[in-house]
Amino acid sequence: MSSHHIIRDQQEPALIIANGEACNNELLGQLLEWSPLVIVLDSAINRVLELGIKVDVLLGDFDVQRTDSEVQLLNEQNTKRAVNLEKIKEEQYPIEIVHTPDQNKTDLEKAFDYLIGRGFPAVNVVWATGRRADHTITNITNIVRFRDLLKIVLIDDYSKIFLLPNTYEKWYPAQTPISLIPVGEVTGITTQNLKYELHHESLTIGYRTGSSNEVLQDGLVKITYQNGDLLMMECND
Amino acid sequence: MSSHHIIRDQQEPALIIANGEACNNELLGQLLEWSPLVIVLDSAINRVLELGIKVDVLLGDFDVQRTDSEVQLLNEQNTKRAVNLEKIKEEQYPIEIVHTPDQNKTDLEKAFDYLIGRGFPAVNVVWATGRRADHTITNITNIVRFRDLLKIVLIDDYSKIFLLPNTYEKWYPAQTPISLIPVGEVTGITTQNLKYELHHESLTIGYRTGSSNEVLQDGLVKITYQNGDLLMMECND
Repeated sequence: MSSHHIIRDQQEPALIIANGEACNNELLGQLLEWSPLVIVLDSAINRVLELGIKVDVLLGDFDVQRTDSEVQLLNEQNTKRAVNLEKIKEEQYPIEIVHTPDQNKTDLEKAFDYLIGRGFPAVNVVWATGRRADHTITNITNIVRFRDLLKIVLIDDYSKIFLLPNTYEKWYPAQTPISLIPVGEVTGITTQNLKYELHHESLTIGYRTGSSNEVLQDGLVKITYQNGDLLMMECND
Repeated sequence: MSSHHIIRDQQEPALIIANGEACNNELLGQLLEWSPLVIVLDSAINRVLELGIKVDVLLGDFDVQRTDSEVQLLNEQNTKRAVNLEKIKEEQYPIEIVHTPDQNKTDLEKAFDYLIGRGFPAVNVVWATGRRADHTITNITNIVRFRDLLKIVLIDDYSKIFLLPNTYEKWYPAQTPISLIPVGEVTGITTQNLKYELHHESLTIGYRTGSSNEVLQDGLVKITYQNGDLLMMECND
């Protein structure tokens, strides 16, 4: 069991474990260490339980109560998507189970809504990428609608992804790979201290993106833009 | 060695092996079997060589010639990105090496350009997703600019991704998962035989996507749309 459940200041980011590719255990351990609240999405709980992690909230569309043998039977046919809620409640006590039947939102969006409702200012999300490409692209691009509501960072073994505010400044070492990915069209982008600078230019998803740029020299990188939603991706092979 | 290099009708899709997460070997084997031409992107060649695959074209930005010991030294520090071209030319004879220094295009776009130049009508792409999120999202969304030039299908262990023509009809079994992902804004979308139908509606990346829909009943699915670029993703867990 992790020690994450020691009570901490709610200013630390919560942690959501979504349903994509698992990250490496060291990264997960570091994030758990500092997280005041751990939310797991739906059937990801089956994989999380195997790792011996204490979970605070399980969120999903659990339409039917299942026994262990039913879960085993279903999962033999059905790629581990069935969940035995009664057993999880017992093993993970205390755990909050949040039923979210709304078909118009993804589980990840519902988890963001839940955190906003509880007053969390920030969240890290792991296992949100990899596996199904539709989930990956939806998880990455949907964070833009939570601008001003929740500071979201998606993290996997290769990438750190977040929505840039309209003015962004941070110190980076030279040659840090930086990709600027527009969700739709983004106008009036200006950069300072990147290898390929932008001077009041536009980027458009599918047609012109700012992938595979890099920091020019040790120092502050400054990025400003006017309209649209611009994602920062700090990625490494 | 695969037997893919038997001469076949150029109507069969070429195969590009990009630089993301490897797919399973069975999928790769099936695609190699039918492909008249195999293109590998840049340092993915190191991982491809380990699989004993015959490659026709190696495409990348090879700015410096390296010996084997230099490659080993560099790769110890540098995550397998250096390539020994001389050795590859010898082992893979005959192989075409295409140098592509243009920094304004990704290697995958350059490979599409190369195939268009050689008159290929279609291509399957593997290893284009997974690992770095910036590469994944760029590879997926950039296929839209090749509409009418090249029929592109990205394939990984969980997903099959392609750009929908403005009118699309295909037979699917009931409950097949189907995700409609707009690259930017797509207007005037109408569907027939999906669980959540669209009636002359719009989808916008980041704000409203058609992820996680499914086929209603065995039969033809029809999708039409007016403006923009709509991706089809057939995905499974």
